Amino acid sequence: MASFIPIKTVEELAGYIPQTGPLQMRNQSFSDIEDDVLYHIALGKKSHDLKDMFHDVKFVCFGGSPNRMRSFAEYMVKALNYKMPAGQDLCDIAHGMVWVCRPCLLSSMRIFKLLHHAECSDVTFFRLGTSGGLGLKPGTVIITEEAVDGLLRPYMEVATLGMMLQHPSRLSHEVAQELLNLADPNADFDTIIGKTMCTLDFYEGQARLDGFFCDYSKEDKMAFLRRVHNRGIKNIEMESLCFAAYCYRAGIKSAVVCVTLLDRMEGDQINVAHEVIEEWQQRPQRLVAAYIRKHLGIESNVSCNSI
Amino acid sequence: MASFIPIKTVEELAGYIPQTGPLQMRNQSFSDIEDDVLYHIALGKKSHDLKDMFHDVKFVCFGGSPNRMRSFAEYMVKALNYKMPAGQDLCDIAHGMVWVCRPCLLSSMRIFKLLHHAECSDVTFFRLGTSGGLGLKPGTVIITEEAVDGLLRPYMEVATLGMMLQHPSRLSHEVAQELLNLADPNADFDTIIGKTMCTLDFYEGQARLDGFFCDYSKEDKMAFLRRVHNRGIKNIEMESLCFAAYCYRAGIKSAVVCVTLLDRMEGDQINVAHEVIEEWQQRPQRLVAAYIRKHLGIESNVSCNSI
Repeated sequence: MASFIPIKTVEELAGYIPQTGPLQMRNQSFSDIEDDVLYHIALGKKSHDLKDMFHDVKFVCFGGSPNRMRSFAEYMVKALNYKMPAGQDLCDIAHGMVWVCRPCLLSSMRIFKLLHHAECSDVTFFRLGTSGGLGLKPGTVIITEEAVDGLLRPYMEVATLGMMLQHPSRLSHEVAQELLNLADPNADFDTIIGKTMCTLDFYEGQARLDGFFCDYSKEDKMAFLRRVHNRGIKNIEMESLCFAAYCYRAGIKSAVVCVTLLDRMEGDQINVAHEVIEEWQQRPQRLVAAYIRKHLGIESNVSCNSI
Repeated sequence: MASFIPIKTVEELAGYIPQTGPLQMRNQSFSDIEDDVLYHIALGKKSHDLKDMFHDVKFVCFGGSPNRMRSFAEYMVKALNYKMPAGQDLCDIAHGMVWVCRPCLLSSMRIFKLLHHAECSDVTFFRLGTSGGLGLKPGTVIITEEAVDGLLRPYMEVATLGMMLQHPSRLSHEVAQELLNLADPNADFDTIIGKTMCTLDFYEGQARLDGFFCDYSKEDKMAFLRRVHNRGIKNIEMESLCFAAYCYRAGIKSAVVCVTLLDRMEGDQINVAHEVIEEWQQRPQRLVAAYIRKHLGIESNVSCNSI
């Protein structure tokens, strides 16, 4: 009689289960050492009272540009009816349940460690960004259903001690659907759910014709973009895969919301006015703010589009 | 009689030959359009006189931290006996043959385009950085002989229109040897040539034990580091592969010079004083400055270590 060895998925093997309660590190070799200097974000376990500073954080929002994230922080203060205590500035907004921060691509792991040291629980992560759309009117908001790489693979590869490990880049479908339900049906732009292609390269990785290097034709480019579009890709950007893979692996719910700045089917360079782009970039911010307000039970007479 | 199809290397197929004379783009689909907005570095072909601003650039130096690169720019003004014209600040140092700039990982391609528009020729690129060393006294300067990825592969992979293309990450052995010859034999630290491992991940990619994720033991870590060390890897950082691959493909001579901030065989966290690190970070800067001075024929009575 044949015996079967049960096949375990990467998630089962690695224990990728959602976390509830105080965030635990997924590190078999790390004991809670006396100090832990989070070098890149200028905080440390010994030098700062991380629990006092961050323990009530429930939402973490990442975005690419420092200016954009600063204006988002200012916007959130209003959206949450948050009273800034005297002597505090926006750096202290973590006390208001929401932490707005600027990542480099890999900073999310440092934030996980920080939230662990601060004994936070049930945190949701958002990435708010810009992207190139495929076959969509510029200014459309895409809530990412699944992040895939340039070969449409739904995982991030990390070379680890000589092995190439694959970490699934899953996002929370519940958060995505709830965000979609919060979109203003009367807005003059669309908000949709779709797949997002994430590339490591700004030019060739995205089939652009205007990079320093390009060894393909315009016809090659269009054929490729049509093929990925036919497979459900709605936009292209550069952070969602890593963001989704790290959050999923940590057991943290996460969502990616990006506005499109152009239709990549029509061209490679952005040709709308700076003020228009500024307004478009606020669309993901307003949507995520509406979600956070709802979950914090903050009433508002204004719709998410009119603050 | 058998006939043989000659096997072409990736370099031959892609025409990876050193460039002399005005830098040409390696783009078959880009005609010199009227305008080209270099969005991320806030310059454009139409909005700026790029030829006037940058045509005499011969050396481009990249580094990771804005503060470090600012202090390097100030240092270069002295090292080159450069007289700052009234009304100019360090942003104008491009007129002094050397351009010091802060990259994100991918900005080098934008600098290539800029140098093309400015009709620069015979430019050499340097990356000056920090790294973790293997079996070396902290503060050692490593001139990279070859950049390899986390699986010791000497190329960068870019998913391009559905194909995973491999771009060799070669550096100039001539520039490396010349840099080594310029190292001060009386300095109280070593300067050596060796292989550099470049990872996409700060924690697991570098076999650290102190990340949020870790599913290996200290013994696994040490076994891995010993194995790569035995194969000539002297240090680990996060930019050399991409930098080397883009420069080699563009036909531009390049070198990577990094100081080590710790011995990764001994631990994962840096535990020397900030002022010590500041001094160590100047070591690659002084070496590259000596190279540039020599090539510009700038005499100096002071050694490269005493400015």
